[in-house]
Amino acid sequence: MSKKDKPIGVAVLGLGNVGTEVVRIINESAPDLAARIGAPLELRGVGVRTVSADRGVPIELLTDDIDALVSRDDVDIVIELMGPVEPARKAILKALETGKSVVTANKALMAQSTGELAQAAEKARVDLYFEAAVAGAIPVIRPLTQSLAGDTVLRVAGIVNGTTNYILSAMNDTGADYASALADASALGYAEADPTADVEGYDAAAKAAILASIAFHTRVTADDVYREGITKVSAADFESARALGCNIKLLAICERLTNDEGQQRVSARVYPALVPLEHPLATVGGAFNAVVVEAEAAGRLMFYGQGAGGAPTASAVMGDVVMAARNRVQGGRGPRESKYAELPIAPIGFIPTRYYVSMNVADKPGVLSSVAAEFGKREVSIAEVRQEGTVDEDGQRHGARIVVVTHKATDAALSETVAALADHDAVECINSVLRLEGTAE
Amino acid sequence: MSKKDKPIGVAVLGLGNVGTEVVRIINESAPDLAARIGAPLELRGVGVRTVSADRGVPIELLTDDIDALVSRDDVDIVIELMGPVEPARKAILKALETGKSVVTANKALMAQSTGELAQAAEKARVDLYFEAAVAGAIPVIRPLTQSLAGDTVLRVAGIVNGTTNYILSAMNDTGADYASALADASALGYAEADPTADVEGYDAAAKAAILASIAFHTRVTADDVYREGITKVSAADFESARALGCNIKLLAICERLTNDEGQQRVSARVYPALVPLEHPLATVGGAFNAVVVEAEAAGRLMFYGQGAGGAPTASAVMGDVVMAARNRVQGGRGPRESKYAELPIAPIGFIPTRYYVSMNVADKPGVLSSVAAEFGKREVSIAEVRQEGTVDEDGQRHGARIVVVTHKATDAALSETVAALADHDAVECINSVLRLEGTAE
Repeated sequence: MSKKDKPIGVAVLGLGNVGTEVVRIINESAPDLAARIGAPLELRGVGVRTVSADRGVPIELLTDDIDALVSRDDVDIVIELMGPVEPARKAILKALETGKSVVTANKALMAQSTGELAQAAEKARVDLYFEAAVAGAIPVIRPLTQSLAGDTVLRVAGIVNGTTNYILSAMNDTGADYASALADASALGYAEADPTADVEGYDAAAKAAILASIAFHTRVTADDVYREGITKVSAADFESARALGCNIKLLAICERLTNDEGQQRVSARVYPALVPLEHPLATVGGAFNAVVVEAEAAGRLMFYGQGAGGAPTASAVMGDVVMAARNRVQGGRGPRESKYAELPIAPIGFIPTRYYVSMNVADKPGVLSSVAAEFGKREVSIAEVRQEGTVDEDGQRHGARIVVVTHKATDAALSETVAALADHDAVECINSVLRLEGTAE
Repeated sequence: MSKKDKPIGVAVLGLGNVGTEVVRIINESAPDLAARIGAPLELRGVGVRTVSADRGVPIELLTDDIDALVSRDDVDIVIELMGPVEPARKAILKALETGKSVVTANKALMAQSTGELAQAAEKARVDLYFEAAVAGAIPVIRPLTQSLAGDTVLRVAGIVNGTTNYILSAMNDTGADYASALADASALGYAEADPTADVEGYDAAAKAAILASIAFHTRVTADDVYREGITKVSAADFESARALGCNIKLLAICERLTNDEGQQRVSARVYPALVPLEHPLATVGGAFNAVVVEAEAAGRLMFYGQGAGGAPTASAVMGDVVMAARNRVQGGRGPRESKYAELPIAPIGFIPTRYYVSMNVADKPGVLSSVAAEFGKREVSIAEVRQEGTVDEDGQRHGARIVVVTHKATDAALSETVAALADHDAVECINSVLRLEGTAE
């Protein structure tokens, strides 16, 4: 029996910005979607925490019994847009176990339980798609898993969190300090009441884990990702960055490292970094997202667009829904990776990066040389030093600020150097330590 | 019987830059590819025009009998990289008829025979993939057909020809005229001995046809694409463009047009156009490609990377090969679009665009007003006029140059206006007519 034209039943879990847009597209684009799929999509129900008449969806479609909704025989695809790890995980597992294909935008969940969920999908022989979990509307999951499946990805670097990019862009454009830029972002709705997940880099770390997993065919969880947030980035850092021809961006970086013996490891990390203005990520402003992929044969690719918001995220969700529905109509599910490479994760200490260190020092002869010596002792080569006088509130010149930019060295050698500098007699304080990314050496 | 681990046999047709890279990747990445596919890829043979020992491939793998190679029982996937429409079309049809999946980078063929080839693939229930036919390594086909399958694409605008972008970038950067920029491009290997396909826009038109077909679910062939090349773009045009805050780029534009009655039509066109410097396509330099997609829910997305060259194109080819091979291992073929929308093609006369017209006029009072009147008569609204004196070789001032930039009007009204200006008493000559793209109105 051909399944052609037999409707594909859909359940939506969650009716926030994204869920509302998804329901709108399913209704308003019904004829187009049916033509592309080969069968009409039919919305069987929408799971919400509280059923009420003012949700913009016919009340008879609403239910707070998620378990019953995802188990219905006439549901083929479950679209999970509820948010946190639980109860989303439980609902998705239930859906997979009862043979539904699942589409989710849940990055925290996918960064934590990807192995468990992938196994459940494998066992049930159904699709589990999550394009919307990283970079909203920008296609990155599918290009990495499919278009680049025959290439060797060397590095993925992205601006994948709109809130922090909005804050950092404002600091760069207006000279504001972190606290006031955050306050503005909150007032405009770009930052949540509790901004921790964004500003401390947890959201970006979840996305880095997902990107590293698919780019390197290795299971990487959020816990494997080294993470620093943007809360310590100062207006003075932006001044120094400008003087160095750089902007400061919160980057999610996934890298394939090969040692001298040819052994490969994977690094996934999130931190604010100086990025030279000529690098394509340096000028990605406001709430936009961008991901740069470097692969052996393809060279450098960039993907750019809106990384969040109801409609852009719904676009990515609906792409997954159409693909899962096409698979149902034409015979089962999409093909998947056969075997994971399961490369080991490299600890941050092993990662070669460049450092930017800003410190206040005593204003006397020989300081610069003794500071430089601390770098030299640990074989960290200095690329650039800037020294400028600092002025206190009374207009009195006292001490000097030294900014050092290093060449690449292991993170271990660099943090050892910084620790030694903090104890150094001539160093009054370390103002900040950031990395420099996007340059050749 | 599980097909797992049974090798997937591959035949490569053509051993130029791309074919050589494809063979290299198949050999050097064999273990990785096998892990991702679930079975090893095995190269059964390489079709070439002349078998000889110096091709870098074991001579026993080479054959000039393409027909026999694509029909072999132990070949599952045929990779067509031979080039022109024939004999590629014949070889691909033969491969599809004998049940092979086909991966091709042949844009001219895909822009001409896509219907015929898609039907043959459909009949044989095999895959026909062509990611490498547009924009080299940059994933655009898969994002458009899959990631955006649930969205409504409104517009695709791209720089999809590296040769012309190299020439135009050089003209912009150095002030060179077209002939000398072309000569430089040829000397450096960026332009072919006969550059017609590139500089006259045929190559870009083929890619526009493919992009329009997949973006709008409608069969568009290269003959449906309105086309102008870059041979008439002058150094003076770049000067004027700069004064207007623009660069000049050869654009491939695919647009969904909706009239007042809600009827939809598709426009596909290729021409050099002024692009405001703040538009993301304005700064895509050298031989790079970029494609901007605007969709209803996703908003504006941009894809950027290397659009040509052996390795980048091979990356796209190998992505398709891995997907086709995974499909073979896991059961048949990938899902495809069920039904085409088959929107009608709008002729260029109906397309609303903005014009840039440069003309030499007699230097006497009233000329500007009578020139402007020609636009007004045809309801073409003028956005900006620049008038400057022209100076002949003897340093004598004679006449003036007027540059007019219009608001949007139909191409028909605009070309009628230009025709009238050409006959106008006060107009000595029309220097150039270009369109202006990438602005709101």
